[in-house]
Formats: sequence, C-alpha cells, structure tokens
Amino acid sequence: MPSVLTTLDPSMRQLAPESAAAATAATIDAVIDAAVQQLNHRPRERLGDRYRRLRRQSQLIAEPLSAEDCCVQAMPDASPIKWHLAHTTWFFETFLLERFQSGFAPFHPQFRMLFNSYYEGVGAKFPRPQRGLLTRPALEEVMAYRAQVDERMLLLIDALEADGADPDTGSQQAQLKDFLALLELGMQHEQQHQELMLTDIKVLLSINPLQPAYQPLPASMQLNDPVELELQWHRIDAGVVEIGHAGSGFCFDNETPRHRQFVEAYQCASRLVNNAEYLAFVEAGGYEDASLWLSEGWEWKKQQDLNHPLYWRPAGNGRWREFTEYGLQPLQPHRAVVHLSYYEADAYARWAGARLLTEAEWEHAAARLQGQGREFFGVAWQWTSSSYAPYPGFAAAPGAVGEYNGKFMVNQYVLRGSSSATPLNHARLTYRNFFPATARWQVSGIRLARQA
Amino acid sequence: MPSVLTTLDPSMRQLAPESAAAATAATIDAVIDAAVQQLNHRPRERLGDRYRRLRRQSQLIAEPLSAEDCCVQAMPDASPIKWHLAHTTWFFETFLLERFQSGFAPFHPQFRMLFNSYYEGVGAKFPRPQRGLLTRPALEEVMAYRAQVDERMLLLIDALEADGADPDTGSQQAQLKDFLALLELGMQHEQQHQELMLTDIKVLLSINPLQPAYQPLPASMQLNDPVELELQWHRIDAGVVEIGHAGSGFCFDNETPRHRQFVEAYQCASRLVNNAEYLAFVEAGGYEDASLWLSEGWEWKKQQDLNHPLYWRPAGNGRWREFTEYGLQPLQPHRAVVHLSYYEADAYARWAGARLLTEAEWEHAAARLQGQGREFFGVAWQWTSSSYAPYPGFAAAPGAVGEYNGKFMVNQYVLRGSSSATPLNHARLTYRNFFPATARWQVSGIRLARQA
Amino acid sequence: MPSVLTTLDPSMRQLAPESAAAATAATIDAVIDAAVQQLNHRPRERLGDRYRRLRRQSQLIAEPLSAEDCCVQAMPDASPIKWHLAHTTWFFETFLLERFQSGFAPFHPQFRMLFNSYYEGVGAKFPRPQRGLLTRPALEEVMAYRAQVDERMLLLIDALEADGADPDTGSQQAQLKDFLALLELGMQHEQQHQELMLTDIKVLLSINPLQPAYQPLPASMQLNDPVELELQWHRIDAGVVEIGHAGSGFCFDNETPRHRQFVEAYQCASRLVNNAEYLAFVEAGGYEDASLWLSEGWEWKKQQDLNHPLYWRPAGNGRWREFTEYGLQPLQPHRAVVHLSYYEADAYARWAGARLLTEAEWEHAAARLQGQGREFFGVAWQWTSSSYAPYPGFAAAPGAVGEYNGKFMVNQYVLRGSSSATPLNHARLTYRNFFPATARWQVSGIRLARQA
Amino acid sequence: MPSVLTTLDPSMRQLAPESAAAATAATIDAVIDAAVQQLNHRPRERLGDRYRRLRRQSQLIAEPLSAEDCCVQAMPDASPIKWHLAHTTWFFETFLLERFQSGFAPFHPQFRMLFNSYYEGVGAKFPRPQRGLLTRPALEEVMAYRAQVDERMLLLIDALEADGADPDTGSQQAQLKDFLALLELGMQHEQQHQELMLTDIKVLLSINPLQPAYQPLPASMQLNDPVELELQWHRIDAGVVEIGHAGSGFCFDNETPRHRQFVEAYQCASRLVNNAEYLAFVEAGGYEDASLWLSEGWEWKKQQDLNHPLYWRPAGNGRWREFTEYGLQPLQPHRAVVHLSYYEADAYARWAGARLLTEAEWEHAAARLQGQGREFFGVAWQWTSSSYAPYPGFAAAPGAVGEYNGKFMVNQYVLRGSSSATPLNHARLTYRNFFPATARWQVSGIRLARQA
Repeated sequence: MPSVLTTLDPSMRQLAPESAAAATAATIDAVIDAAVQQLNHRPRERLGDRYRRLRRQSQLIAEPLSAEDCCVQAMPDASPIKWHLAHTTWFFETFLLERFQSGFAPFHPQFRMLFNSYYEGVGAKFPRPQRGLLTRPALEEVMAYRAQVDERMLLLIDALEADGADPDTGSQQAQLKDFLALLELGMQHEQQHQELMLTDIKVLLSINPLQPAYQPLPASMQLNDPVELELQWHRIDAGVVEIGHAGSGFCFDNETPRHRQFVEAYQCASRLVNNAEYLAFVEAGGYEDASLWLSEGWEWKKQQDLNHPLYWRPAGNGRWREFTEYGLQPLQPHRAVVHLSYYEADAYARWAGARLLTEAEWEHAAARLQGQGREFFGVAWQWTSSSYAPYPGFAAAPGAVGEYNGKFMVNQYVLRGSSSATPLNHARLTYRNFFPATARWQVSGIRLARQA
Repeated sequence: MPSVLTTLDPSMRQLAPESAAAATAATIDAVIDAAVQQLNHRPRERLGDRYRRLRRQSQLIAEPLSAEDCCVQAMPDASPIKWHLAHTTWFFETFLLERFQSGFAPFHPQFRMLFNSYYEGVGAKFPRPQRGLLTRPALEEVMAYRAQVDERMLLLIDALEADGADPDTGSQQAQLKDFLALLELGMQHEQQHQELMLTDIKVLLSINPLQPAYQPLPASMQLNDPVELELQWHRIDAGVVEIGHAGSGFCFDNETPRHRQFVEAYQCASRLVNNAEYLAFVEAGGYEDASLWLSEGWEWKKQQDLNHPLYWRPAGNGRWREFTEYGLQPLQPHRAVVHLSYYEADAYARWAGARLLTEAEWEHAAARLQGQGREFFGVAWQWTSSSYAPYPGFAAAPGAVGEYNGKFMVNQYVLRGSSSATPLNHARLTYRNFFPATARWQVSGIRLARQA
Repeated sequence: MPSVLTTLDPSMRQLAPESAAAATAATIDAVIDAAVQQLNHRPRERLGDRYRRLRRQSQLIAEPLSAEDCCVQAMPDASPIKWHLAHTTWFFETFLLERFQSGFAPFHPQFRMLFNSYYEGVGAKFPRPQRGLLTRPALEEVMAYRAQVDERMLLLIDALEADGADPDTGSQQAQLKDFLALLELGMQHEQQHQELMLTDIKVLLSINPLQPAYQPLPASMQLNDPVELELQWHRIDAGVVEIGHAGSGFCFDNETPRHRQFVEAYQCASRLVNNAEYLAFVEAGGYEDASLWLSEGWEWKKQQDLNHPLYWRPAGNGRWREFTEYGLQPLQPHRAVVHLSYYEADAYARWAGARLLTEAEWEHAAARLQGQGREFFGVAWQWTSSSYAPYPGFAAAPGAVGEYNGKFMVNQYVLRGSSSATPLNHARLTYRNFFPATARWQVSGIRLARQA
Repeated sequence: MPSVLTTLDPSMRQLAPESAAAATAATIDAVIDAAVQQLNHRPRERLGDRYRRLRRQSQLIAEPLSAEDCCVQAMPDASPIKWHLAHTTWFFETFLLERFQSGFAPFHPQFRMLFNSYYEGVGAKFPRPQRGLLTRPALEEVMAYRAQVDERMLLLIDALEADGADPDTGSQQAQLKDFLALLELGMQHEQQHQELMLTDIKVLLSINPLQPAYQPLPASMQLNDPVELELQWHRIDAGVVEIGHAGSGFCFDNETPRHRQFVEAYQCASRLVNNAEYLAFVEAGGYEDASLWLSEGWEWKKQQDLNHPLYWRPAGNGRWREFTEYGLQPLQPHRAVVHLSYYEADAYARWAGARLLTEAEWEHAAARLQGQGREFFGVAWQWTSSSYAPYPGFAAAPGAVGEYNGKFMVNQYVLRGSSSATPLNHARLTYRNFFPATARWQVSGIRLARQA
C-alpha cells in the first residue's frame, strides 16, 4: 500500500513506496545521500523553512482526525496524537527556548511536566499509561502551543541566520553549534514521532468495531497487488566490515562510533517475505508448532492466543483481509508481510530453513547489494537478531539529552531499514530502530538470511 | 456545595440542595410524593413533554464539556459521557423501538453491540474497560443518534397518546401497558446515568494535573460553609416494620416486594457526618489504626496507600482543599463528608463508637423522623451495613430487562437516600443504590447509628 | 463418604455421618446439647483430659501425612498442616501462657511472629502466602513445641483445678474466669483448624497428578451409594423468630446477641441437593447459561473456566469420578454435592426454581424441623444468601482476641450447619461459618428454599 | 567464602576457590584442560565410576537438608531440591534408557510428565510454578528412583564397556556413539543442576526469618577476609579473534561453532568488583540516581524497592551482613560482590566510569591474560553485555534434545566464567551461561572493561 505520507505532503512524493519497491537500493541510497547533503550543505537562510515545513507535516498527519481521535490512547505503548503534537513542541521549548531565548517564559507552567516523555533529568513526568486521560489541554490549545513555540523558534532561527555568519566570540560559536545541534535533534525527534503518530492511530482505529479508515482510498489508486518479485539469495563473503555512522550528516548517538565487525560468510534475501509466503506458514500450522518458536515467544503467543499478524482478519473460506489506513482491504499476496513481533519473524525464519540477519550483516548487505537488493527502505522495518546494545566506544551525551538512546539498551531488538510510515528523508543506512520482541504495532517485517 | 443540576436546569430548582439540607424530611417526602403522584396521574398527553425534558437534561449535563472530555474513560468502573449519551438511547431503541415501531430499522446496525452495557440476553457487548477507545462514532454522530431516536420515540408516544385512551382489544391494552412500563424504565434508567455522568466526569477531571473545573463557580454563589447542624440521636423502638415499595408509583424491581422486618431498638443520627468530624478522625490517625478497620478494608487501604477521602488534597499546614465541580476549593467543615468507600465509612463509625444503619433501619428511620432528621436526601448517598440481596419474594422480570438488578446481588453494599448529583425527582424512600465496598467515586457519605 | 474423623478417633464415633445423615436433627441437637452440658457442667478435674484429647486429635489428623505433606501450602487461602499445628499452639502460648504462667519464657522467640495468623494487635506476622516456605522449624520441632506447650498448659490447668474451687479473692476469680474463657476459646479455635487441616490437605493432594489418597479405603467400608432420600418441602409460617446464641454454653462472639428477626413464610428442603441432581444441572448446560448466574459469578466462572464442582473429574462416556480422602472414587449419585462456591450454589438454586435460605431461615428451620429435616449437620456446610454481618448489638471483645471474628464481616457469605470434616462436638445450631463467594475447598453444599 | 562443594566432596578439592582466587588463570585452564583430557581419553572401563561419582555428588548436596527443605519451591524460577534430584534422573531414563535398554519399563509411568522440565517434544509437563506442591513422590521414593535408574544405567554402561571396544556393525557404532554422547550430556546436565540446587536452596533458606545455615561453619575455617587484590587494567589490542568451542572435548551446542569476531581495542579488569567497592556505590546513592541505570532496570528497581545486593542485610550503624551458606555472616570487603542482577552490574559499571565486557571480549581476555587475570573462574559468574544469541552457523540438534539451548536465545544475557557453586570440572573457557537481566539468585558478579 502506498505510504500515508505520500498522500499528505506532495513535496515528499519524489519517492512513493510503489516506486520504492521497484527502485534499486542504489537509487534510494542516492536519494538519501542527496538529502543528507542537502541537510548539511544547504544555505543557512533556509533553515527556518525546513523547520516550518517539518512542523507542518505533523499537523498534516493529524488533519484527517477528530479531536476525539487525537485525545485517546489505544494502549500504554502508544500515545495519543495530541500528546505527540504537544511533546514534540515541548522538546523545542525545553531543550532550546529555555536555554537560548532571552526572557524565556513557558507557554504554560505545567506543560513541562505534562509532556515530558521519559527524561528523568527534566523532573516529574505524567504517567505514560494515563496520557489518554488528558482531555485538557484541548487539541485546540495544543495547536496554539505549537504555533506560539514555532513563532519563538523562528525568531531565534532568523536571528541566528542573520548574525550567525560571523559570531563574535568562541563562546558564541559554541552556543551556535549547540543550538544547531539541538535544533537538528528536535527535528529528527519530531520525525520519529511522525512515524509513531501513524502507527499509534492505526492501533486505535483497529480496535474500533467500526473499523474506520484513517483516510479514504483515493479513487485513482490501484490497490492491485504488485507484481511478484522473485526471491533471490545473495552471497556475501566473510570479512571485517565497518558499520555505524561517520561523516558530517546527522545521526543519532546510538549509530556511533563507526567501528569494525567480523561477519562470517552469509546469504541475504533480495526482498522481504511477502503475505503469500507468510500465509503458507500460517496454513502449515506454524502457530501451533512449538519446535519453531523461541520458548518465551511460545508462552507469549499462547497467552495472547495469537495465530496471525496483528492486522489480518479472517474473511471466511480461508481468505483474509487486512486492516489498513484505508480500512479493511483484501490481503495482497505480494506485498511484504508487516506488523509482526520478533517472535513471529524468528519462528517464520526457522520454518523457512533460514534465520534473521544480524544488524552488522544487514548494514553491510544493504551497502553491498546496491542494484540487486530491494525493499531495504520504505516498506517495512526489518527485525534483526541483534539485541540493542551500545557500539564499542559509544558514549551518551551529557545531561538530559543524553537519555535519548542509551538508557534503552536492554531487552530490545534492532530493526533496520525504514517503513512505509517513515518520513522519507529520515531513513539512513546506519539507522538503528529498536523495539521489544513483543512489539507488533510498528510496520515491521522479515528479511531472511542463511549460512553461505 | 449546591447540586450541579440546580445550575443546569432551572425547571428542577424547586428544591436546591441548600434548602434541602435545611428542609425537613417531611417536606422532602411530600415533594417526592407529589412528584410520584404527578408521574402516575399526570394527563397522558404530557408524556411526550416529560420524555423530551428528561432527554434534554442529559445533554445539558454534557454541555460544559468538549468532545474530548466526553470521549475518554477515566477508569474501568466509569464510562465516557458519550457512551452514557449513546447507551441511554440504545436502551430506548433496543427495548422499545425494536419491539413497538413498525418497520423498525436501527440507526446503525453495530450500535446494538457497541452500546450494550451488560445485557447478556441482547447478544455481544463491547468490553467495558475499552469504552473510552471508541473515538468513533463521534460525539456529533451520537447526538444525531439521540435526535433520531427521540423523533421516532415521540412519534410512537404521540400515536399512543392519540389512540391509547381507547384501545380496541385486550392484546392492545397489554401492549400499551408494556410500552408504558418500558418507557418509564427507560426514563428512570436515563436518570441513573445522569447521576453517573456527573460522577464519572468528576473522576476524569480530578486526574488531570490542571484540575479543571466542570463549571465556573457562579459569581452570585456563596461558597461559605453552611451553619453547623448539631448532631442529635433519635431513638427508635424495636418492632416489626415494613420496608420496600408498594403502591402505584414507579420503582425498580429490587425495591419489591414490600415485606416485614424486625428491627431491634436503635438510635439514628439526625444528620450526616461532616468534614470537620471526619478530619478529626484523619488527624487522630484513623487511617493508621488497624483495630478500626475491617480486615479486607485494611489490606485494600494499605495497597492503595490511602489516607483521606477521594477528592481531598493537602494544602499545607494541616489545611485541606477539595476537588469539586468548581475545581479546587477550600474544604468546608460543616458540609457532609463525601466520596468515601464502605471501608472508610465503617472505620469512621467504629472510631466514633457507633455503627452504620442497616437498610431496614434506614428506611424506617427516614419515614419516622419526618421533621427531625436531615440530609436523608439530596446531599450524599448513605452507606448501610446491608449487603445487596433480594427481598423475600423478589422475582426478576423475564427477558433481558430482568437483568436490570437481580444479577448484581452479591458482594455489594446498599446505599440509601440520594446525593447532590441525583436528579431530584429520582429520589425515593425505598430506593436501593448499591456499589462494591471499594467504590469512592460516587457522592457517598455516612449516617451513624448506635444501639438504643 | 464417612467422615475422616470417624476413622481417626474411635472416641468420636458415636455419631458417624452415615448415621447422622439418617438421624433426625432432634437427635443431633440432643447430642449437641448433651455435649454442651458436659462442657459446662463437667467436673473441673476432667478439663486437663479434655484438653489433652483435643490436642491429640490434631496430631491424629496429621498422622497419615509425611513431613513433606505437612510443610507445603497448596494455595494462599490454605495453610500447611505444620503451620496449623504450630499456630494452634501459638494461640495457647500467646494468649494464655504469656499472661498466666509465672516466669513465662517463650519456646522460641521468633515463633510469636512466625505463627501469628492475623492478629494485628500481637505485632508482626509472617506473610500468609509464604507459609509454605517455612521448611524450618521442622515438623519434628513443631511437635516438640506442641509437647512443651501442652506440658506447661497442663501444669496450669492442674494447678487451677487444685486451687480453683475456692479462689481467695475477687481478682483471682476474675483471673480464673478469664483463663477458662481463653482456654475454651483456644480449644474451639483448634477444632476450627482441625477442619481446615482436612480441607487444606485435600487441596494439596488433589493438585498432585498422582492423586494420592489421604488414607486407604478401609476394607470393611461400603462405598456404595446411600439409599435415595426423597426431597420434601416443609412450609414454615411467617413470624418473628429468635436467632443467635443464648445460655451458658460456649459460642463464638459472632453468634451473639440472640435477637429477633422477622421471616416471611417460606419452604425449606428436607435434605441437601445431591450429586445426581447437580449432575442434571451440569448436563443441562447450567455452566453455559448466563441467565442463571450472578454477574460477578459468571465473570469468575469464565475466567476460571469452570464447568463442574471442584473435585469432580470426567471419566469418559459422561461418567464422573470424585477426588476424595480415599483418592479418586466413582461419583455417588445420592450423596450431597459438595465443594461448591456460593456462585454455583446460587446458580443451581435459580435453575431449580428455588433459592438459598437466609441464615435466619436456616436457623429457624433447623430448630423447627426436628424429626423431619435431614443433613442439617455433619454432611456439608450450607451456603446461605446472608452476607456475614454483625448481629444487632454485637460487640467484639477488647484486645487482640477481639479480632477473632468481627473484622471479617464484609464480602463473605454465611454457611450454616456443619460438614463431614467438622469435629462432631463442634457443631451448633447457631454456628456461623463464613467464606468468600469464590471458596470451593470447604465441604460446602446446597439446601434449597422457596417462597411459601 | 569457600565453595560449598569443597566441603562436600574431598575428591573435588584440588582447587578450592581460596586457592583459585590466588591461582593464575593459566593454572585453572591447565587443570580444566587436564580434566577435559581425562574426560575424553580416560579408559572406557572407568565410565561407570565417573557416572557413579557424579550422581553421588547430587545426593551429597542434598544431605544437609531435610525432606521438607527438599520439597519446597522458593519462587517460580527456582525448583525444589527433590525435583532436581528426580529431573536429572528423568533425563537418563527418558533420553537413554527408553531408547537403549531392551525391555524398557519406566520406574513410574507418570514420572515422564512430572519431571519433564521444558521439553515440548517429550509431551506434557507439570507446571513449573507448582513443582513445590509435589509432596508425592516422597524424597525417599525419588531416592529409590535414582537408585533404580542408576542400576539400569550401570548395567548398560558395563555392557557397553565390555562389548564396546569392538562393535560388530556400523549401525552398532552409531548407536554406541549416540549413547556416549547422550550419557555425557546427561552428566553435564546433572552438573548444571548441582549448581542450581545450591542457588535454589539458598533462596529458600534466605526467606526464612530463622535465617538457617545450609551447613555449619567449619571450626577450622577462617572467615577472615582475603588479602586485598589491587585492581589492574590490561590492555588488549583490536583484531579478529576466534571464540567458541572446537576440539574433541565436551561442550554444549550453544558454544559452537567456533567462529571469528572483531574486537576493538579494550581494557579488561584484572579481578572482579569487590564488596567494598560496591558498598561505595551503595553509599554514594547509586540506587537513587536514575542517570546510572538502564530505563527498564530503573523501573524494575523502583517496583521491587531494591537498594542493595540480594543477600546483604543492614546490621545497623552502616554495617552490613550477608546471608551465606553458613547463615548470616559479616560482609567481607575484599570478596567479590555477588548475587547482582544485570541491571545492577550495568549501573555499577557506569558509576565506575567503565562498562561490562562483551562475551567475545571476555573469552579473548580470559585466554590471553593467563597469569595476569584473576577470578575468571570459581568465584562468580560475570555478566557480559552480550544478549544470548546463536553463534553464526549454530544449529540445534534434531529432536527433543535440540531444545536444550537454542530456544532460550532471546531476552537473556550471557554470563561467563564460573562461580563458587559451579562443579569444578564443569567450568570451561567457552561456556555460555545465561539468565534474564533481573536474575539475582545466581552467584553473579561484575568484571569491568573500558575502552583502550
């Protein structure tokens, strides 16, 4: 299915997932590289425009939704849309305006606590599972909060762009550098929340027996299944590889430092596992065969009484439908299977006589298979068998901002690539997404590996 | 504090709680009797008006609230306002229109399941703890549902009022009688939900750190504490008494049959326990003395870490505030203490060297102490020591409507009287309210008794 | 099945349940009266013998069990046999020796905390759900504890019996009276635990897949089903009745004061519901019909996935076996159905077009139906529809002993009569047993009532 | 404290942990190598002796315990000693006798289910959290089970040793090889349970307020703290290293295949963190500083209300005692801190400006630092930052035996080395122990690393 985002923001449509699925990874990487270049080398006077466009994008995502839709929390792991809209704003207010705006006064004194997600260093937090109880502030007031913070931010950005070319002192330079780094982090952070807004609203709508669509199926859009891509295996030789981020573009701290890993020879699948293949696993009794499952996954599956991916719905006579952003739609065999837990991805791989990639293997393969591999980006996050852990030499930033990544490095698994819900210029070869093994509400799928 | 309702619907202000607190029970009973007379003997042509006014009252309660406020569920025991608005409508559609409207078609085929509360006989139910996830239908659509059902109901009522004086056959007479009984039940049912709407929204707003008021404190209103009422003890002799409903007015099935009970001699307090008295219990360490508590209550209190009534908030220096419909207000010593669990009411009574009344004692005292007792109605529901159980000879109605009361007769305690949130003409000497011993979100207080 | 006790202590066999079932309540009451007389009027020199025999009885119950069997706790509601043996001893040591023995020194300083059940007034308690973790003290050491406390108790009793006839002063008389009252309470308390020992060990053995018998089926014993007793209905007229204990014999505080209640006319079943009748309910889908159940019971039943009494086991082809003290045995149609929760008893009664008795009805009927009613005692405790609550005028004793009963008077239901596990001379017309509605591990059954 | 085992089995005392702490890793490795040699190259006629001695060792561990001690389960993660004794026997009966003994008949038909731990391929299992409820079979009967299985095993072993030198056919050879492999696995498996027996009984005794000692402190034993070892940092250069097992000795499947990994340069601590160092962390408020903890660990710590290692007990005035196999003893500053969760180990490391080793780093350092590093073996398992995952090319064995390791490879962390509770000849450079991050009841400690 085409990305939600493509229908929301025409300016981001250069690479609709339809074409993405067909495009070579090389092309994607080229586009991403270009985007990264643009990020780093764009003339400074356009920073305000970028900020404005990015912030507007979050509001476009909320546009098809009512105030009620935006207020409610589907489950403790998800957050209300309104909360996302406020929290991303809180980030700019707390980490930038509070520090860099002279005469700073908060929009509302209690928002500092209400919209703090998990930063222990910032003080009290409103309990996460109760975020959906905050009917006040109203959506309208949150929008006013956004507007006011944006205005203040743009004043600061404009001022910097005016002066910045020639800061008087080293201390001013350091200030400027800090500001720009935090501004970039705030924008990247907001993009992460843009993806979560799409996955969180999907859970909420999926629970509703009316099965409402997030947006209407565009008349012009063909929901026909894509052409089947034959699965091929690409052999990659053993050797020392480098992974992790280097260079001047933005990355999160968890992508650094770039370092060496040894990978034994392996084979990497040319595309993701599709619905037809996963259905064969379901029909073969994959959900009833303990020998295919990790012990913990088996107990979890039994307790949750699961026997298909999160959004599949039986439609009688062995046929299936899938709950999508367009409401219930027939399951399309040649699209990538999505919304799987790590346990399901792992069990499927075992059934298929294969395994998941490690994150080093994934990153190396994605870099190597330009022109041969597909669906590395823009279709589904790909579970790896790598537990989320610090790279050798990793050091978190000091202060509250340092809580961004490092403190989550336990009992989660790394997902690589990007999904149809990821903002396009947010994807990156070295990007490390991570979720607990039970998470199914992200757009997560399977790329297989096997020994060479 | 004055009843919320009095500020909402001027037509119901004859007996504002302020005056209620001062009025004699005799007066109240007289008013109630008159209301009951009116219910039963009012000319049939005015039934439509009564229906219309009562239905409008629910919408007036929702008026100060946003769509977001109306959508969210504060806790599993409470329901969203929107759900109350829809469910009360569902009751009329399911139990009346479906049976009596020719050519019946539902407003929406899935509402039958979505807004079924607990009627197993009606089919599937949407899980109670997830009612707050129903962002669709929108509040607006629920209002349209109400309007459409009201229109259909009023057509039926008008038709009946036109024909009804002279039904042709016995079968038509039986039909008419059924219709009128169900109509009355539907309206009484909606009044029960009107009270719940007020208590449920209070929980939701109370959880919000912004502590928003349900409505502004009217400029003209004196929040000064009322004059202190001296507590007196009224002795009532032993003897066989009759309790339960008899006569032609409406009552719920659980109030029947009227039957005899023997009560040993006892004394009944002339008014409810007030905040000052309860504060003395708190300050005397009442929440830390196991010997005052029922064992189960003690464990529950420890686990919940409770040390004051639900909406009290410490304000420093030993002073307290209370969260009310007008937001946080200073605690008023001479108002009745409210929002207590059964365990707290029972522990307080033990500390005060007294006990709670049984429901037979309560009903008998309320009838006997006309002119002497106060606050039997209109201030706070009064916990009795009686477990909610069927009266001798009780029989539930056949069919789904029979699920109204009987199936809840276990592990709940009876509360008597009525509260500041109860619609005024809904109170009745024989009314049996009931909640689990842990319930604190109702407007519940304490009337003491002791042995004669 | 015959009572466990009859095979353990020949001195208690006067009234084997076999004969009890056939005997008239009049006979039983006569026996009980005689026992009560004996308790009160027996020559004081025999008190030591009674104490010794009663204490020995607890050890006889443990005799068929290994130290392992005695150590383990089957579930939080049950206690290990070793714990029962120690706790009953603790009662004598804490409430009698500590107060009356000069130069008192505890057997072990930590036993005061280890074997305190629920007395907040005595200080710390070892957490109930962990009682089964106390592998130390060993069973042997607990037996030594018993022996030593018995020795000290008997010295005291002997001394009192020597002096007691003629105490010098009023203060000595008061002391003596207190001692005798506490001694009686301690012995009655131990008898309560003797019953619990039998029900608790039964749960433990029933969980074991080996389904071990508590004791071998005696070769001489006929396990043939008893002759069917026809169920008859006895009408009892309305009127003021007296219930509760009066007179000089022992009773627990919760049986007092004797007081008046009014009962409307009703009918009382002549015997308990038997297995054949209950099986008809099971086979008619009683466990699948929500309309028969209390709402809370229905949810509980679904959650626990129950569809038969606690110890029934399907044996293929629609036949059933029952786990008993003799291991698995064929279900015997004409014995009383036992090990039911309140919810099941209530649902069965509704299915049978009847209801449960209130406790006033039960006590009155048991007294009135001498010679006509059967199985009031010695077969199964009978659930009543009465919540466990204080009688009018009830007052708990001062001090820790006062925690004996009153603090449990909420959310429990009264059972009347006595069961095959109750020590014979422990039964009493006014006895109030009580358990939560979910309790199934006691020997609990159903006596039906219906309106006259 | 010296290893429990050393006081139990003089034949295993060659390397008491006292000396182990002082000995070089080289020596240990030499001893281990020798043991491995012996395992592999010992004359076949002595296999029976080795089996007999190893099986006897389990019984020696149980010897200081009563039947009650052996029956009870302290927590779901731990198992009763009796269950360990039976389950290890079940392993031989199920995987060896059932396949290789002609005319096989089980000791007891239900033991197959009762003592199955987690093998889905073997059929039903008794629920793990209820293992402590199995008072039957009695300890005595389990001992008889052991004796009988040992007799049957030894007959088989003797027969094989007689014939085995010259099997007639290839199929017999394959059989022989299978038998020997399973026999070895069974013995290694039993050694794993010997360690668990010691850690599981420790939890049970620690919960008992009597704080009983597992064994008396030998009069001859000096409990004086050892001499302080200075902590040194050893630098290890970056490079491709090989880890995993190769060669002819026994190993578990999870140690294979030997493969290459790249490690960046790092420093490895020469010894484990000791109690004095960890106490400094405690006293510096380490348990109250969120910035030191993984987010998940912080929530877990708060919920469990932890502020010191599992068996530390405050002794007043800032002094501490530790619950040990000898009962409560003064905390000894220079012994390694033990019984820590992964979260605590990780938080300590962060506080100390260091980190944990990865398992590749650990294995490489342990091999490289011969003569320089200490306490790699025999003191405490060392948490690594490596999630438990399959080595590249790992393949589980077919059939039920294949469930041994692979299915646990998620959400657990690898511990390396061995502890004072590990049977001495069970330690191995490539050994991979694994537990969830919350596990504290194993003898687990900390070895620090830092970037070079």
